[in-house]
This record gives sequence, structure tokens and C-alpha cells, in this order.
Amino acid sequence: MPESYVILYELGGPPLDGRTPRRYSVFSWRTRLALAHKGLQVESRPVKISDKAAIAFSGQGKVPVLRDGETVVYDSFRIAEYLEQTYPALPSLFGGETGHALARFVNSWVDRQLVGTLFPSLMLENEHLLEADDAAHLRGQVEGVTGKSLEELAAGRNDALASFRRQLDPVRSALRTHPFLSGSTPRYPDHILFSIFQWARVVTPTRLTADGDLLATWFDHMLDAYDGLGRREPPREAA
Amino acid sequence: MPESYVILYELGGPPLDGRTPRRYSVFSWRTRLALAHKGLQVESRPVKISDKAAIAFSGQGKVPVLRDGETVVYDSFRIAEYLEQTYPALPSLFGGETGHALARFVNSWVDRQLVGTLFPSLMLENEHLLEADDAAHLRGQVEGVTGKSLEELAAGRNDALASFRRQLDPVRSALRTHPFLSGSTPRYPDHILFSIFQWARVVTPTRLTADGDLLATWFDHMLDAYDGLGRREPPREAA
Repeated sequence: MPESYVILYELGGPPLDGRTPRRYSVFSWRTRLALAHKGLQVESRPVKISDKAAIAFSGQGKVPVLRDGETVVYDSFRIAEYLEQTYPALPSLFGGETGHALARFVNSWVDRQLVGTLFPSLMLENEHLLEADDAAHLRGQVEGVTGKSLEELAAGRNDALASFRRQLDPVRSALRTHPFLSGSTPRYPDHILFSIFQWARVVTPTRLTADGDLLATWFDHMLDAYDGLGRREPPREAA
Repeated sequence: MPESYVILYELGGPPLDGRTPRRYSVFSWRTRLALAHKGLQVESRPVKISDKAAIAFSGQGKVPVLRDGETVVYDSFRIAEYLEQTYPALPSLFGGETGHALARFVNSWVDRQLVGTLFPSLMLENEHLLEADDAAHLRGQVEGVTGKSLEELAAGRNDALASFRRQLDPVRSALRTHPFLSGSTPRYPDHILFSIFQWARVVTPTRLTADGDLLATWFDHMLDAYDGLGRREPPREAA
């Protein structure tokens, strides 16, 4: 086994083809792209949302969890930092200290603003990807936090999408000057942003961007990056 | 005259002390801090909002405008890029290519979200700093864009402040890990964010942050940075 072989514990939904679990976790996609960026070989271990026992070894209950030899790291941003620190000779995820600090801001901006705006209204569709026990678990979580049913949240989807698109204006503005949020090549800030679009691509046929939107072009390039890692995950087709 | 001597054309309000014009321009503060970061000597030339003739040599009508020898540059972000490119041996404003790209995103995020949320409701107070012709000019601009009077906009100040504080959550989150948005030392992304807080400090006694807010601590450090450049500008005192 080569030294660069790591194990990723991540959420997995029931396979479409009876073989490959669906990858819908927004945080796991960040880690998958970060590993590809570093060129590390990875073995994926699907974990159900409701199965805390499978990752008990990490001392906490959330995926993704990375195991690299004897080292166990959880939390997608901390995993990216671990990879950058442990493999400094491989392509940089942050592009230096300033890029690292600003990536933390981007991570928090995406999670607090974009995820908060978009996700509740699309959770009903995420549910369709899951086995019954995981679906019930997710529903309980989201309804507990928002105080609304997934069906009520889904009814607000058009407003949520409009707000989400407006919130992305600063990214559009940046993409007018360079093809990726991180500049001429994608780095971890692009992986963070990609994860939302990829999550939506997997759980819903609803399109997040209009034709001609710079973000649609960017997402297309991100799907092709890393030998088409993102594109190999099948999209959710319209019913 | 040393080579590093540049001229900055920037908005200036009537002096408090009969001598020093008030510096209230949000964009000019970005440039002032960028010049201090590079350690460049600067001569400031105050320009009135309504006086386009004073900067006609730049081929456009907006300040700040930088003149460095034979070179003339306008637009605060382009000025920062010019300084970084022209003086690469002086302390870096962006911390590399990734930092540069992400600074562009921060610039757009601040202008489209934070400025858009906060400024209209405080413009009535900015007016008090200006001579009558500039005050009328500014009122016309803001009322034309928003379709509301400055007095109506001021009435929405508490809601605007609450939204503004929420929008800053991702910055707070980043400041839990490092003292500046750009990491261990301030760079141009901090200058961008500083410019809003400094504008508010000059035009209104209203405080943007509550005691104990990490952003209040950050702003305090930014006022002290560059030999107290920001702090030397007198704040607006409560009436």
C-alpha cells in the first residue's frame, strides 16, 4: 500500500446501479476534491447518517472523517489543513498563509450564508435519495432547527433560490477577472463553493444557475477538473 | 523628492480644526492603508464630490486617484494592484496569487453586501460633514439610487444595523482563529473591511459593534496599525 493511500468515511446513499453509493454530502465533496488536488489515492467508506458507531473511532459523530495511517482527522476544513501541512510538496490547497486565512472566511461565508439560504428548501428532495431511517433522521434534524416541516420549507424554494443567486453576486464579480474563485487554477475555496452546487446536482433536477451565468461556466469547469471527478457522480434527473 | 513619493486625490470634507480636511471616503481609506502598508510617502489632495475638474486629468470622474510620477491610476482595487505590481519588494498587499484573487471576492462582498446594507441608513449623517453643494450632490445620488429620502433611509437604521451585524458573522468566525482577516498580519482584505468601519467612525457616533465583539477588537487593532494612521482621524462625537 503506497504511503499516500488514505481512507475517507463519508455519507453514502443507496446505490443507483446496485454498486456505487450516492455521494451527496456537501462536506465530503470538499474533502474529495482536496484529496484529488493533492493527488492522493483514497478509499471511500460510506457511512449512514444514523450510524454513529461506524465513526466512533474518531471520538465524535460527524463525517467526513479521514484516516491517514495512524492519524484520524474530522471536520472538512481541518482535514484540508491537515493535508496542506502533511503534504506541503504536493499542489497547495490554500496558496500560502493569506490564502489559508481567506479560505477560512470563504468557508464560513458559504456555510452561514449560502447553505443557510438554499439547503432547507431542497432538503425534501435530498430525502428521496436516502433509506427510510436516514431520511427520518435528516428530517428530524432539519425540522428541529427550522421549526418547519420539509414540505413547508420546499414551498419557499423559489424565494430561497432568488436569494441564493443574489448572494452569489460577489463571486460572479470575481469570476469576471479570473476563471476560478482562487485565481487561474482551482484551490480549496473553489472546492468549498463547488460542494454546494454538486450537492444540489445530486439531490435535485432544479438548476441553481441560469444559462450564461458565469457561475454555470465555472461549475462546468469544476465538474471537469481532477479528471472529471465531480462529473462522474450521476446527477439527479428530472422525474 | 524621493521616488516613493505619490499623490493621492481623495474626497475631503471641511476641516474640523481649520486646517486638516476630514477623510470620510470609504474607498480612499482603502488606498491610504495600502500606501502605508507599502511604506510609501503620500501627499493628499482633497477633492470635493462635486468638483470633477480637479481629477479630469485621470480621464474619469471618481476618486481616489493615485499619481505616481507619470502614472495615473483610479479605482481603489486597481490602485492596490498597481502598488503590488510596481513595488513587489515592499510588504505584500495580497500575499500571493490566491490571496489576490480572494481579495477581489472580499472587495466585491464588502461593496455589494455590507456597503449596500449599511450606507444608505447613515448617509444623512455623512451629509452633516459636507459643505452645502457637496451635501446636495450626495443627497441627489443616494436618493436617485434608492428612491427614498435620506430621512426615510435613516429611519430604517436599526434594521440596517442588525442586518449588517449578521452579515459579518463569517468574518467573526474567521477572527476566532487569527487576529486579522488576512491571517497573522493585516493585508489588503483587512484594509477593505476597515474602510467601512472607519467611514462610520468619522460620520456617525453610532457604534457598529457591541462590546466584546471580535470585530470591535479587530477594528481597534486596525486603528493602531501603521503607526495609528486610522486613529489619527478624529471620530464623530455624539452631539
